[in-house]
Amino acid sequence: MASFSGHSSQSYAPSAPELPQSGRYGYHHGATPPPNHSYYGMPQQQQQQGPGYMQSWFPPGTNPDVIRAFEMVDRDRSGFIDENELQQALSSGYRRFNLRTIRLLMFLFKNPYDSLRIGPKEFAALWGCLGHWRAIFDRYDRDRSGKIDSMELRDALYSLGYALPPSVLQVLLSKYDDRSGRKVELNFDSFVECGMIVKGLTEKFKEKDTRYTGSATFTYDTFMTMVLPFLVSYD
Amino acid sequence: MASFSGHSSQSYAPSAPELPQSGRYGYHHGATPPPNHSYYGMPQQQQQQGPGYMQSWFPPGTNPDVIRAFEMVDRDRSGFIDENELQQALSSGYRRFNLRTIRLLMFLFKNPYDSLRIGPKEFAALWGCLGHWRAIFDRYDRDRSGKIDSMELRDALYSLGYALPPSVLQVLLSKYDDRSGRKVELNFDSFVECGMIVKGLTEKFKEKDTRYTGSATFTYDTFMTMVLPFLVSYD
Repeated sequence: MASFSGHSSQSYAPSAPELPQSGRYGYHHGATPPPNHSYYGMPQQQQQQGPGYMQSWFPPGTNPDVIRAFEMVDRDRSGFIDENELQQALSSGYRRFNLRTIRLLMFLFKNPYDSLRIGPKEFAALWGCLGHWRAIFDRYDRDRSGKIDSMELRDALYSLGYALPPSVLQVLLSKYDDRSGRKVELNFDSFVECGMIVKGLTEKFKEKDTRYTGSATFTYDTFMTMVLPFLVSYD
Repeated sequence: MASFSGHSSQSYAPSAPELPQSGRYGYHHGATPPPNHSYYGMPQQQQQQGPGYMQSWFPPGTNPDVIRAFEMVDRDRSGFIDENELQQALSSGYRRFNLRTIRLLMFLFKNPYDSLRIGPKEFAALWGCLGHWRAIFDRYDRDRSGKIDSMELRDALYSLGYALPPSVLQVLLSKYDDRSGRKVELNFDSFVECGMIVKGLTEKFKEKDTRYTGSATFTYDTFMTMVLPFLVSYD
């Protein structure tokens, strides 16, 4: 029997809850970039401008805060940000983000034309997605400790439709055990990482279990290709 | 069609090639610990002794170098070593080992009674296994660069019976890309990590594909529980 269920309204999005149509970050799914939008670089005349230079590159309706956050870290005004710049952008809003989570985010939201940098469209999607994770984190961090413990994580994932068996939850949390003997608690970035891994793997599983039987069949190639992106990354 | 094949002589061992019956490190598989062997601590009179104090705790026939390596890092002479001590032991023999690989090794070779430390039996098995990986590394590092590139990795894994499709190899190696623009090359510790991940996941897959059809069926719980141990770990 399946021990997971997805929200029926959820399509497969990059390992994160779907973004609400309106919300703090105001990014609208499916918005098309301006007609002159290109991933291959900004026209020269748009570079070297002051604040707001990126505005026309973001989807219409993007919250100005998102654009400002992008501009703050895009030091060379290339219209793209790399992993270090993304870390800087997210660390200001959500404490210091660990680079491993940044790389997972970069992978999941990657620009189809450039896997090492993200452009305005990907940044807006990523930002909105993190806003959604933040809301979940705050809702389930019931004791307002700024950290999520195992029961809070279980409930948060459950609310998203992922009913993890205790054995799976235990293995997942053991990866965050700092060997101090204290109970495992997750900061926001680790919570996002956990959530995206669970969501990513579960959605991959569900793609092969369309009738919700709780079992899925994979070829070896498919199995390896879907699992490896969630594994280790260079550091 | 299956794109992998296992050595028929290989049973599932902790994600590493089987240890040769005789070799540099001389540890014999299946050797039983001395009758007084216990994981719950050494008798007081055995503690605080000089070099060789661990000898009777290792499987008979263990190479004295292995015992010495253990004693060198077991500073408190508890008869167990933790991840930092293991890192120290392996770094002396094989340059500095990254802690992520150490944690994967600890997980795969873990003491059934204590997941945060390993005892002499696990250490000897781990050491022997690394000796085997070292021999493979040296054999396929054809240009003697001290690093394994993608083609050398492909050939090394192929020699172990893992014929990774190019797409899988590419995803695997992308995790080790340092974003410098240079081609990806693996040090010994990353090579061991890659090898153990490929071996570990492939063997798990094969357990569910006993007729070697190239497809395997998993329940959701099994899928998550088998994949998560290879994922991120605290750092």
